[in-house]
Amino acid sequence: MAGKNIKTMDGNTAAAHVSYAFTDVAAIYPITPSSSMAEQVDEWAAYGRKNLFGQTVKLVEMQSEAGAAGTVHGSLAVGALTTTYTASQGLLLMIPNMYKMAGELLPAVFHVSARTVATHALSIFGDHSDVMATRQTGFALLASGSVQEVMDLSAVAHLSAIKGRVPFMHFFDGFRTSAEIQKIETIEYDELAELLDWQAVADFKARSMSPNSAFIRGTAQNPDIFFQAREASQPFYDALPGIVSDYMDKIGELTGRQYHLFDYVGAPDAEDVIVAMGSVCDTIEETMENLLTDRKLGLVKVRLYRPFVVEAFLAALPDTVKRICVLDRTKEPGAPGEPLYLDVRSAFFDFADAPMVIGGRYGLGSKDTTPGQIVAVFDNLAAATPKEHFTVGINDDVSMSSLDYDPRLSAEPEGTIMCKFWGLGSDGTVGANKTAIKIIGDYTDQYAQGYFAYDSKKSGGVTISHLRFGHSPIKSPYLITRADYVACHNQSYVHQYDLLKDLKDGGAFMLNARWTVDELEANLPALVKRQLVEKHARFYLIDAYKIARELGLGNYINMIMQAAFFKLANVIPIEDAIKYLREGIDAAYSRKGQAILDMNYAAVDAGVNAFIEVEVPAAWADAQDEPTSREIPAFIEEVLVPMNRQEGDSLPVSIFVDREDGHFPSGTSAYEKRGVAQSVPIWVPEHCTQCNQCAFVCPHSAIRPALLTPEEVAAAPEGFVTIEAKGKGMEGFAYRIQTSPLDCMGCSSCAEVCPTKEKSLIMPEIGWDKAEEANWEYFTTLPVRDKLVSKTTVKGSQFAKPYFEF
Amino acid sequence: MAGKNIKTMDGNTAAAHVSYAFTDVAAIYPITPSSSMAEQVDEWAAYGRKNLFGQTVKLVEMQSEAGAAGTVHGSLAVGALTTTYTASQGLLLMIPNMYKMAGELLPAVFHVSARTVATHALSIFGDHSDVMATRQTGFALLASGSVQEVMDLSAVAHLSAIKGRVPFMHFFDGFRTSAEIQKIETIEYDELAELLDWQAVADFKARSMSPNSAFIRGTAQNPDIFFQAREASQPFYDALPGIVSDYMDKIGELTGRQYHLFDYVGAPDAEDVIVAMGSVCDTIEETMENLLTDRKLGLVKVRLYRPFVVEAFLAALPDTVKRICVLDRTKEPGAPGEPLYLDVRSAFFDFADAPMVIGGRYGLGSKDTTPGQIVAVFDNLAAATPKEHFTVGINDDVSMSSLDYDPRLSAEPEGTIMCKFWGLGSDGTVGANKTAIKIIGDYTDQYAQGYFAYDSKKSGGVTISHLRFGHSPIKSPYLITRADYVACHNQSYVHQYDLLKDLKDGGAFMLNARWTVDELEANLPALVKRQLVEKHARFYLIDAYKIARELGLGNYINMIMQAAFFKLANVIPIEDAIKYLREGIDAAYSRKGQAILDMNYAAVDAGVNAFIEVEVPAAWADAQDEPTSREIPAFIEEVLVPMNRQEGDSLPVSIFVDREDGHFPSGTSAYEKRGVAQSVPIWVPEHCTQCNQCAFVCPHSAIRPALLTPEEVAAAPEGFVTIEAKGKGMEGFAYRIQTSPLDCMGCSSCAEVCPTKEKSLIMPEIGWDKAEEANWEYFTTLPVRDKLVSKTTVKGSQFAKPYFEF
Repeated sequence: MAGKNIKTMDGNTAAAHVSYAFTDVAAIYPITPSSSMAEQVDEWAAYGRKNLFGQTVKLVEMQSEAGAAGTVHGSLAVGALTTTYTASQGLLLMIPNMYKMAGELLPAVFHVSARTVATHALSIFGDHSDVMATRQTGFALLASGSVQEVMDLSAVAHLSAIKGRVPFMHFFDGFRTSAEIQKIETIEYDELAELLDWQAVADFKARSMSPNSAFIRGTAQNPDIFFQAREASQPFYDALPGIVSDYMDKIGELTGRQYHLFDYVGAPDAEDVIVAMGSVCDTIEETMENLLTDRKLGLVKVRLYRPFVVEAFLAALPDTVKRICVLDRTKEPGAPGEPLYLDVRSAFFDFADAPMVIGGRYGLGSKDTTPGQIVAVFDNLAAATPKEHFTVGINDDVSMSSLDYDPRLSAEPEGTIMCKFWGLGSDGTVGANKTAIKIIGDYTDQYAQGYFAYDSKKSGGVTISHLRFGHSPIKSPYLITRADYVACHNQSYVHQYDLLKDLKDGGAFMLNARWTVDELEANLPALVKRQLVEKHARFYLIDAYKIARELGLGNYINMIMQAAFFKLANVIPIEDAIKYLREGIDAAYSRKGQAILDMNYAAVDAGVNAFIEVEVPAAWADAQDEPTSREIPAFIEEVLVPMNRQEGDSLPVSIFVDREDGHFPSGTSAYEKRGVAQSVPIWVPEHCTQCNQCAFVCPHSAIRPALLTPEEVAAAPEGFVTIEAKGKGMEGFAYRIQTSPLDCMGCSSCAEVCPTKEKSLIMPEIGWDKAEEANWEYFTTLPVRDKLVSKTTVKGSQFAKPYFEF
Repeated sequence: MAGKNIKTMDGNTAAAHVSYAFTDVAAIYPITPSSSMAEQVDEWAAYGRKNLFGQTVKLVEMQSEAGAAGTVHGSLAVGALTTTYTASQGLLLMIPNMYKMAGELLPAVFHVSARTVATHALSIFGDHSDVMATRQTGFALLASGSVQEVMDLSAVAHLSAIKGRVPFMHFFDGFRTSAEIQKIETIEYDELAELLDWQAVADFKARSMSPNSAFIRGTAQNPDIFFQAREASQPFYDALPGIVSDYMDKIGELTGRQYHLFDYVGAPDAEDVIVAMGSVCDTIEETMENLLTDRKLGLVKVRLYRPFVVEAFLAALPDTVKRICVLDRTKEPGAPGEPLYLDVRSAFFDFADAPMVIGGRYGLGSKDTTPGQIVAVFDNLAAATPKEHFTVGINDDVSMSSLDYDPRLSAEPEGTIMCKFWGLGSDGTVGANKTAIKIIGDYTDQYAQGYFAYDSKKSGGVTISHLRFGHSPIKSPYLITRADYVACHNQSYVHQYDLLKDLKDGGAFMLNARWTVDELEANLPALVKRQLVEKHARFYLIDAYKIARELGLGNYINMIMQAAFFKLANVIPIEDAIKYLREGIDAAYSRKGQAILDMNYAAVDAGVNAFIEVEVPAAWADAQDEPTSREIPAFIEEVLVPMNRQEGDSLPVSIFVDREDGHFPSGTSAYEKRGVAQSVPIWVPEHCTQCNQCAFVCPHSAIRPALLTPEEVAAAPEGFVTIEAKGKGMEGFAYRIQTSPLDCMGCSSCAEVCPTKEKSLIMPEIGWDKAEEANWEYFTTLPVRDKLVSKTTVKGSQFAKPYFEF
C-alpha cells in the first residue's frame, strides 16, 4: 500500500472528511450510528478547518431530524451547499423534506450509516430498512461497502449532486462500516477541488433565493399543470448516471480505484451470481476468493442504486449467467419480494433467455453475515429447487425460510492475525485496541481492521473487540470466529461467556484475574478448562488490576493489557511495539509531568513482563461443574440466559412464537446478575446514621435499607449484621444496609454520597462476594415495611422486590 | 337499486360511517382531502352516536400527524381500537409509527384519501405518491375505487385488522373519490356487528398493556435476536389474505357486491389487460364497456395491494392474456419502474410464456384521467412497439414519454344527463348542487354523481360543479366534457373562461348576468357568441342577483339558480322538483319564521319562471373581438393566462423547461385581475377622515390611499377626484382613496370598518367598473410617498406597486 495519504479511520470519519470539503452548512440531529460524522465536522469547524471554499463549516443542531431536514432544505434554497448525517428513524423524519429537495433539484447530500428501523423492537444496529424507506423520494442512492469505498464514493456523491442537481444519499452499513476501523488511503482537499465543477457551484448560487432576484419556490399547483411540471425534471434523472460514471472514472484516475454503476467481480464465465450492496459484498468476494475457488461464481456490487440503470446492470453481468440470487438487507412484510430483488427481476423481465432470479434476506439488525452464510446462499442457488424468499443467518423453524449454514466457516486469507478482546464497557479496552490498530496501521506496511461489538447495556455491558492484521487488504466485514489471541479483561466473564469458543487450535488465551495459578483449579469453570485442553491453548494469567493499583493507575488496566497483547500476539516485533507505545504515551501525557509519563511507561513494561504462562493440566479435559439448583422461569432459561451468554444468535425463530408482537415479560433483571464490579460497597454499621442516601443514589438499586423485626433478625444467616433502628416509631426494629454484590456495577456513588465523617460505606478492592450474595437472598425474603418507606425518601428500598410474571 | 339503505354521500362520509362503528379512539390531525372524515366522526360523537361497543368515539386532535400517529400507537397498545384519517405529508409524518404498529401487530386502521406528496410544488390534489411511500412499513394496503367500494372495503379493513392483527391502510383517490358524491347503499351497524370477530376483540383487549398484567413493549434488541424476532411475525402476513378474502365473501353475501383480492372484469378471452387500482378502474371499465366493445380487453382491479398475493393475482387473469399494461398513479424518479409495475413484472417472472408487461404513469396531482386516455393506453398496448414507461394525460414534449389521446372522448352510457356549473367560490353554487343531487338520489330511482373542481384560490376562486344523473350506476370518475346543461353563475366568467367548450351540441347554456338581452351584443365575448351558434345551443339569461336582492336574499342566488336548473335540465318533472325544493326549505328554515320560508319559496318560483330564452343571432357565427393591446411578459402569456382560463391542462412539459425545480416568477398577481366582485366600494370624499383603515383592512390590497402633488392631480384622468390632505406635513398634497375594481373580491370589509358616521365608503350593487380601472392604472404610476407611509399604519398603500421581474 504505497499511497501517499494512508490513515487509519472508521467509515464515519471517512464520510466526514470528504463531506467537510463540500459543505457550507451541516444541519444535523445526532442519532446512532451516524453521530460521529457530525461530531467530527463540528470539531473540525471549531478548530478552523477550511472547506473547498475557504470557509469553516457552519454546523446547526436542530430539535430533531425533522428540523434538521427542514434546515437542509431551506439552507440549500438560499444557496448554501448543505449536508446532513443520519440513520433509521432520523432518516424517516426527513422523508417529507427529501421529496421537496429532490423536486426542487437541490444538491443536498445525506450520509447515512444505514440502521434498522424500529418495528417489534428498537435496534440501534444496521440493515437497509431505513434507506429502502426513501427509495421513492427522488434522491439518488449510492452504496459503499467498506471504509475505503466510503472515502471514495462520498466524493462521487458530493461532486455528482452539485453537477447533476439531484440530491444524493450516500449510505453504508451502520456499525459494520461506520464504526469499523480500517487502514485506508484518503483523498485530499486539493484533489477534490480539482474535480469539482466550479461553474455548477456558481450556477447553484445564482439560482438561490434572494430579495435581489425575487422569485417563488414552493408554489401550490393544481391538476392543470402539476403532472407536466413533475415530468419536466426527468432529464436530470436521465443525465445523472452519466455524471456519476464520469466522476467514478475521475476518482479512478486519481486513486487507481475504479468504480462503476455496477461492479462485477468473479469468474468471467460465472453461471451463479449474487447481486447485493453494502458491506456484505466484501464477505461474498472473500468467500469466492478463499473458499469457493473451484466454482464459477460472480458478484454484482450495486453502487448507484437510484437511479437504477437497467442497461448498465445487464451489461455488468457475464453472458454466461444462469442463476441470480439477490440479497436484500431488509424485510418488507407483504411485498412480493424485497426491493433490490424486484428491481433485478424487472431488469431481466423482457428477455426470453433471462436467468433464474431468486431473493433472500440477510443481516437484519446487524445479524453478522459470515462466509458460511455466503456458501449456503451459493449452494441454494445451485440446488435443484432453490429456496425462494429465504432468510440466511438465522434458524427459521416457524416459516422454514432459512438456509442451513456452517457458522464456524471463515474466509480470511492465510497469514491474517485475528484477536478478540472481552472488555467491560468503559474500562478502556476499546480505546486501547484502537491505539493498537493505529500503531500497526500507521507505522507498518500491514493492514489493520478493528470492529467493536457493544452490548446495548453500553457502560457496564460487555464489549468485544475484533482485530485483524495482515499483509493483504482485509475484506472481512464480519466477526472473528478463529482467533489467534483471545483476551479476557474481566475475571467475572469466565462464568458468563463462552470466551474460548472462537479461539483457534493452538491460540493464546490471556486472562486478567486476581486469582493465583493455584486458585484457577477452584475458580475456572469446567467449560473453560476443557476448551483450553481441547484447543491446545497457550494460557496466560495476569492480575492487571493489582499492577495498575500498585502503579497508581487505579482501575486503568488498558495500557498493561495492550502491552501484553503486543508481546504475545506477535504482530510486530515487541521492541517496535514498546517504542510506539511510549511515543503514544509521550504524545498523550507529556504536558502532565514526568510522574504520569513514568507511570504509563511502567505499565507498558509490566504488561510485557508480568503475565504468567499457565501450564494447562491434562486433567482439565474432563472437568465438570457441580450442577446448580436455582429454579428459573422458562423464558429466562430459554431466552435471556443464552442472550446474556452472547449466544442469542443460536435462538430459533420459534422462541418468539406468542411474542411475535415484540412484547417481553417484565422483571427479568432479577435474573440477570452480572457481578462485574471490581469492588462492591461494604457497610460499616458503627458509622451509619441511617439516612438512606446511599440507597437513594444507587443507579442500579443494588444497595438498599431494611427494617427487621427481632424474629427476622433471629432467622437471618450468620454475618447478617443489624443495628438498632433510629427514629420515632422505629422502636423494636433492627436496621441494616444490604448490598447486592451481583447487581452492583462498582460505581462507588454510594460511598461518595455517604455524609458521615467516618464513612459508613467503603469500597474495598474486591468484587463479587459469595457470602454477601447469601445475605441478599435472605434480604429479598423480608416483607415491605411501610415504616421504612415513610421514614425518609428512598429510591430502590426493599419494597422494590424481584418481580416476575408471564 | 332496490337496496334497503340508500344514501347519497361522498367517499369520506362512507369511510367515516364504517370506521365509526369499529373505533374506540380516533387520533387525528386534519389535512386536505381527508379532513371531513374526522370532522364527521367528531360531530357524530358530539351527538352521542354509538359504535359497535355501545360507546361514543373519543376523538383526539394532536399537534400534527406525527403526534396523531403516536397517539394511535399508544392508544392501541393500551387496548383501544384506534383509527386515523390522513393523506400526503400527513401520512409521511406517520411512517415511523407505522413500522411500530405493524411490528407490534396492532390493529390500527388508517383511512387515507390519497393525495400527492409535495415535490417541485405542493398539490392538495390526488395521486398515490403518499400511499406508495408507506408500502414498506408492514401495513396491509387495501384500495377502493368508488364511493360504494369505500363503504364496503372500509368494513373489510377494520374486520380484517382486528382478526388478522396486521394494521390496515384503506385508501381511495383524494378528491375524486373522497369528495365525489354518489348514491350508494350503506352497511348498517347491526350488520357489521354480526361480521365482527368478537373473540378477536376480546383477545386484543387482553393483550393490552396494563399495570395489572405488566410486560414490556418496545424493547431494544441486539443483533443476536432481532432478525429471528422480526421473522416471527411472518405467519400473520401469510394468514392475512385468507382473512381478507373471507370478509370479502361475507360482505358479498350481505350486500350482493362480491370483491376479491384482485377483481377481473372484461372479456374472458382478453389478450390485452390493464392492471390498476383506485378510481381509474371505473373509467377503464366504462371505456371497455361503452367505447371498445369490439376488442378483447380486460382489467385487473387491485384490491389488496399489500400483502400482494402473487398466486391470487395470476389466478385473476385469463390464460389468454398476451400483453399487460400496469398503470401507476405515482412517479418514483430513478426507479426502474413504478411500484405496481415492478410487482406485476416480478409476479410473472418465473413463467416462460409470461405476457409482455409494460407500465405507465397517469393522473399525477389529480390530472383527470379520461376515457380518451384509456383508449390510448389500450392502443399503445396493442401497438407493434408499445411505448414503455409512458405518461398519459399530458403532452410530454421533453422526454417524449406521453401517449397521444383524444381529450374530448367520453364514455358515459346513453341517457346520462350531464350538467356543469361555473360558480364563484363560497357563492353557494356547490351547496345548491349537493342539494340537487340529494333530491334526485334520495327521492327517485335515478343514480346521481357530483364532483366539484375547486380552484386552489378557494374562496373567490372558481368552482366547477360536474353533475351526472342516469338510470344506470354512474362509473365516470372524470370531469364532464359533453354537458347537456352549462350554467354560469358569475357574469365576469364569460370573459375569463371557455364556458361552452364542454357543451353538447343542442345543449342548454344558462347565464346569470345583469345584462339585458340587448346588452348581450356589446358584452358577450366573440368566442361565446360563436360557440352558441356552432353548438346550436339553447341560451338562457337570468339576473338572479337582482331577483335575490328584490326578495331580500342579498347575494344568495343559489336557490334561484337551482330552480332554474330543475326547470331546464329536465332530470325529474318540475312539479316534483318544486315539491322537493320546498320540503328542503321547510327542513332548513322552518324554525326561522314564515317570512324566511316565503322568501325562499319565492326564490324557487323565480328560478322556474324568471329566466329568458335568448334567440341566438345567426350573425354571431362570425363574431370577432377587438384585439387587445396590453403587453404582458411571455411567462404570463404562455403559462398564467392559460392556467387562469382553466386551460392549463393543454400546457406541454416544455413550458417548464428552465423551471424544472418548480420556481415561478413573482409578481404575477399584477396580471391576474379577476373582477369577480358583484359590488366594489365607491369612495365618498366628502365623508372621508383620511384614517386609511379601509386600506388597512382590505385582504387583497384592492383599496389604497394616495398622496398627490398638484402636478400629479393636474395630470390625472377625468373623474380622478381628490381632496385636500389633512395633517401636519401634508400641506400642498391632495388625498384620494383608490379602488382596484379588478382586484376587489367584494367582501365589503372596507365599508364595514369605515368609522365615519356617514360612510365614506359604500358598496353599491355594481361590479367591475371600466372607468375606475383607468383611475387605478393612473394610480399605479404615482410614486411612493414616505409621508403617507409615516402618516399612519397602512397595509397595502401605494408603495406596494405592481412588481414583476423574471
